[in-house]
Amino acid sequence: MQLASNLLENAVNEFAKLPGIGKKTALRLVLHLLKQDTAEVSHFGETITKMRTDIQFCNRCGNVSDAAICTICANPLRNQRLICVVENIRDVIAIENTQQFSGTYHVLGGIISPLDGVGPEQLNIESLTNRIQTEETEELIFALNPNIQGDTTIYYIQKKIQQLPCKITTIARGIAFGGELEYADELTLARSLTNRLPVGSYISNR
Amino acid sequence: MQLASNLLENAVNEFAKLPGIGKKTALRLVLHLLKQDTAEVSHFGETITKMRTDIQFCNRCGNVSDAAICTICANPLRNQRLICVVENIRDVIAIENTQQFSGTYHVLGGIISPLDGVGPEQLNIESLTNRIQTEETEELIFALNPNIQGDTTIYYIQKKIQQLPCKITTIARGIAFGGELEYADELTLARSLTNRLPVGSYISNR
Ligand SMILES: [Zn+2]
Ligand SMILES: [Zn+2]
Repeated sequence: MQLASNLLENAVNEFAKLPGIGKKTALRLVLHLLKQDTAEVSHFGETITKMRTDIQFCNRCGNVSDAAICTICANPLRNQRLICVVENIRDVIAIENTQQFSGTYHVLGGIISPLDGVGPEQLNIESLTNRIQTEETEELIFALNPNIQGDTTIYYIQKKIQQLPCKITTIARGIAFGGELEYADELTLARSLTNRLPVGSYISNR
Repeated sequence: MQLASNLLENAVNEFAKLPGIGKKTALRLVLHLLKQDTAEVSHFGETITKMRTDIQFCNRCGNVSDAAICTICANPLRNQRLICVVENIRDVIAIENTQQFSGTYHVLGGIISPLDGVGPEQLNIESLTNRIQTEETEELIFALNPNIQGDTTIYYIQKKIQQLPCKITTIARGIAFGGELEYADELTLARSLTNRLPVGSYISNR
């Protein structure tokens, strides 16, 4: 693609770096912005930059946050003794969208996957076991993608905390084994939270 | 969609304003940017803002430009007496991508469309007729979308300049009537430029 303007070309190249955005789509987006007011486009650019610069990760749960503690952890109406363990922020958003869960989260920041070189020490597991001890957590719900890595991660964490008086459950297998939690429809996801099972029965039923 | 961070939510809303980008896609793009370095995301935001703030429109042809005169108009290797008339910048890019055209452009900035309230005075037509007179243009090639509005625009401009010694042609009807020029494949577009016809024969053959 040849463009008469480097300014335009640079903008197209920036958009084309985004996942799923090819050069043609990037050009369409840039030409759209070209038709907008300068102030509006500046606002777009500044909002994106500010998001990345100012965003924080909750000191307690690892969720994205505008402050040191996220709005979910800071909310007294939520059950602070119930922790839902998820792989990433997308999963928090997916579960929040069901409007069925009133506990807190713990974002692992990944999943144990020896083949990809991801071990427990690279994940927010120590902070989780610390939380369970200090916060007297009553129940830990694993909401991990139903696959080998998810099961490995559950097994590892369960071993770590088995001496603590904390109930351990997982979301029901409403999602097919190998499926992606974040793409599940909200009803399936809500139902699998409601029908959650003790971890022991779940692993042995495989 | 409920997000624990306003920073994140604002960024998602900005992306979701872009054409063809829904909330889910916007979230995916923002979460991708969240994983990038702060400097990289700042560069993204600044490039977009700068593009809109600093871009100019060529004083001569109306194409996007980084200076008062665009690189095509300023290029001595291009035939400055050959003008290809197009509706918008996207069409310039489509034709440049064929690498078959070595003249200059004139961007009308739209098309005569009485039903949409677009008359000749809202388009860059006067600057075109001025160019043809002062630049001693040898040939004017209309590369407009083949539809009623395109034909109306050609007819109007042709009447305006019929006393001038300038050959008037249009790109060949390689593109089906009612089709969109900017979505034509490069071969069709290149061929329709090569096989261009005098405007008289073209309008009467309808
Ligand atoms: Zn939190
Ligand atoms: Zn120019």
